[in-house]
Amino acid sequence: MKIVILGGVAAGAKAAAKTRRLLPEAIIDLYTDDTHISYSACGLPYYIQGNFEDYRTLLVRSPEEFAAQGVNVHLLHKAIKILPETQQVLIQDLKENRASLVEYDKLVIATGARPIIPPIENVNLKNVFTVRHVEDGINIREKALKSKHATIIGSGYIGLELLEAFVELGLKVTMVEFAPYTAPIFDDDISTLIYEQLISISDGRFEILTSELVTELFSNENGEVRGVKTGSGKEFNTDMVVICTGVRPNVEFAIEAGVAIGESGAIKVNKHMHTNLPHIYACGDCAEKTLIITGSKVWVPLGSTANKEGRTAAINLSGGYDDFDGILGSAVVRCLSLTMSMTGLTEKKAKLLGFKPVSASVTKNDKVGYMPDVNNITLKLTADWTTGLLLGAQAVGAGDADKRINALTAALLGRLTVEEFTRNDLTYAPPFSPTIDPLLNAAQLLLSKIKKD
Amino acid sequence: MKIVILGGVAAGAKAAAKTRRLLPEAIIDLYTDDTHISYSACGLPYYIQGNFEDYRTLLVRSPEEFAAQGVNVHLLHKAIKILPETQQVLIQDLKENRASLVEYDKLVIATGARPIIPPIENVNLKNVFTVRHVEDGINIREKALKSKHATIIGSGYIGLELLEAFVELGLKVTMVEFAPYTAPIFDDDISTLIYEQLISISDGRFEILTSELVTELFSNENGEVRGVKTGSGKEFNTDMVVICTGVRPNVEFAIEAGVAIGESGAIKVNKHMHTNLPHIYACGDCAEKTLIITGSKVWVPLGSTANKEGRTAAINLSGGYDDFDGILGSAVVRCLSLTMSMTGLTEKKAKLLGFKPVSASVTKNDKVGYMPDVNNITLKLTADWTTGLLLGAQAVGAGDADKRINALTAALLGRLTVEEFTRNDLTYAPPFSPTIDPLLNAAQLLLSKIKKD
Repeated sequence: MKIVILGGVAAGAKAAAKTRRLLPEAIIDLYTDDTHISYSACGLPYYIQGNFEDYRTLLVRSPEEFAAQGVNVHLLHKAIKILPETQQVLIQDLKENRASLVEYDKLVIATGARPIIPPIENVNLKNVFTVRHVEDGINIREKALKSKHATIIGSGYIGLELLEAFVELGLKVTMVEFAPYTAPIFDDDISTLIYEQLISISDGRFEILTSELVTELFSNENGEVRGVKTGSGKEFNTDMVVICTGVRPNVEFAIEAGVAIGESGAIKVNKHMHTNLPHIYACGDCAEKTLIITGSKVWVPLGSTANKEGRTAAINLSGGYDDFDGILGSAVVRCLSLTMSMTGLTEKKAKLLGFKPVSASVTKNDKVGYMPDVNNITLKLTADWTTGLLLGAQAVGAGDADKRINALTAALLGRLTVEEFTRNDLTYAPPFSPTIDPLLNAAQLLLSKIKKD
Repeated sequence: MKIVILGGVAAGAKAAAKTRRLLPEAIIDLYTDDTHISYSACGLPYYIQGNFEDYRTLLVRSPEEFAAQGVNVHLLHKAIKILPETQQVLIQDLKENRASLVEYDKLVIATGARPIIPPIENVNLKNVFTVRHVEDGINIREKALKSKHATIIGSGYIGLELLEAFVELGLKVTMVEFAPYTAPIFDDDISTLIYEQLISISDGRFEILTSELVTELFSNENGEVRGVKTGSGKEFNTDMVVICTGVRPNVEFAIEAGVAIGESGAIKVNKHMHTNLPHIYACGDCAEKTLIITGSKVWVPLGSTANKEGRTAAINLSGGYDDFDGILGSAVVRCLSLTMSMTGLTEKKAKLLGFKPVSASVTKNDKVGYMPDVNNITLKLTADWTTGLLLGAQAVGAGDADKRINALTAALLGRLTVEEFTRNDLTYAPPFSPTIDPLLNAAQLLLSKIKKD
């Protein structure tokens, strides 16, 4: 049995390790065009920030560990073409610059995603970065330690994590966001609040330009970025630029082989992570996800999901049976003292999907007011007016926002109505929550809005 | 409309405030034998610890605020006898030492609970305390500030919170627990772990004597406690003793009036917090609770529940309609760097109730290992082997244990099976959890134990 895995960050590495355990006799080859495998890409902002010294801390398993378990890891080997009829893959050795054909009984596509580069003049200057690979982290940290000012383009999760990293390193930061607020994946009101809260803690350490595009970068005589120009004509100096304007799935070579793509633009898979082609599985950031609440197809590339999908792919290709039902769209990000988190549908997304969403927002203490480390959080809870079903929640604040979002995910999974959720019995003690948790305040308020008489 | 409320801490105060809003015309009288009303009894350990200077911070609403809203608060007035036929209550004014009869259209019994005093010789010495009222907090803090050594009898929630408080104040502490481990409300294995973890952080600041009873207290010439003797014959000196061996509901005068008592020993109520007698409601620590998962009757006196029950009682007695379905048994306590939390049934409780419980425990990092503030937590998840239904969870550790318990409560509310719960999509980012949350590790492990082929 020959197992070929393309890609080796989260999904690919997990699939390889799990398959190894399930099929001790199989020959497993993992090909990646990367220089590293099995690393925590989500940890790059924390390496850049200096939470740990050695970038190898990011590595979950080294190629040597894989080799010791009999998984052959081929770094700097790029998959060029899949030949589904003959069950072969054309692989290019990027170092030796020669191609070879490898055979598979089962193929796993786990080629991930790559950064979207917006149309900016001179975007290829030195010290203009994206954040995806271990090298990106090493290069960004190295440059940041010698810099005074950094520019971050985009204010999504990665942009916000980098903002924290640079501020902690003592750099001045300018963040440029096209939307009129930050973190536009949230509802507009929450995004606006995130923007306001960020500004309130900036303390001269960073500024955020909203409703702005970066149109051009300027260079010095060494071809290094030295300045930024925006759509409104603003110009400012900078020592480095990081582009955090999202990612797109690496699926072109799969499309060419006839692998079907879903409506989200990522590879279509069933619950077993099987593609439309025999013996070919896909998992991780290159694969489409199903939103559990609605069954809708979405593309939300996240490390935790990639891990689970890699596991499911491995179990099924090894002859076992495992379903991956999908995601709830849960996410969390920290930026300095602020936590932003969500699960399920935002109100705008719910409207797009045909629901009649009603929301309730509360701003409350996260603990009893007399505790020394009390902070506030704003919670927005959304339900469907017609059925009363909970659809999602968003939370932001210096307080313990993440805990409240995690307390809601099982309610979405269990398809609870707001009314059912108001009966929830959350833990209470003064260091952990007010007597009535903000989540229950929000649920009560939401219930009053959707109650029919 | 005359509303009489007996008791005014959490349930009584909430019932009064809510009734006031719902029935602007009603005459509302609140009687309590206490010197304070509407206070956070759960906050007493944090006042004792010195998290805030002024004990009045514990007060949610003052008698004056109630008066301004037209709620007549009668402090130091004890309810002696209910006359259900004539809808009257005999009230004793403890200051003036005279009784009077008051009439009611609706009566709310919210008389709470009182500490259990074990049979200890000389238990009435000076500087022997219980923790229930605002005065207890004031007296304990005053004495603690002048003391070098404190003894805590019992290692339940309040005992553990006081242990933290005394240690933070610089006292040496001896805790004496009858069970062979601490926090015996948890399963034995978790209680043992809690004991071990407490000992591992004691650092000479406190000691815990398990499988020990306090049998006798010794006094100095001023009638103040100066020493403790245990069942095994140990003797040690101490400056103060706090008895934290549990509470019992204040229901004797209700029983006398014919109010029915449930199997748990507290007042039997339906979902509207109505007792068996017309026009008489009960809520808070004197009332019995229903365990949502099983429908079993239990008595778990907690401030958050009392609050909700007070609200439900008020809505129903005011002519509205509101159900309080019950509790999940969720609780959390902090002791120094340790958090202990639970929801639902322990394994031992599940066995008693006729389930066939299976459990899985994991000890994991609460965040990604490279984060500077990573800590570990032990999670025990319990399900019913026959149905696969989740029954409960217990968590302990220096890590973020409470978050995981709260992530499970909605699963219990929604009656999810372990298998369904393994599909949960919890938030992930390195400062908040490992890529796969410990809760999902535990669920996977538990699923493997109950899977039938």
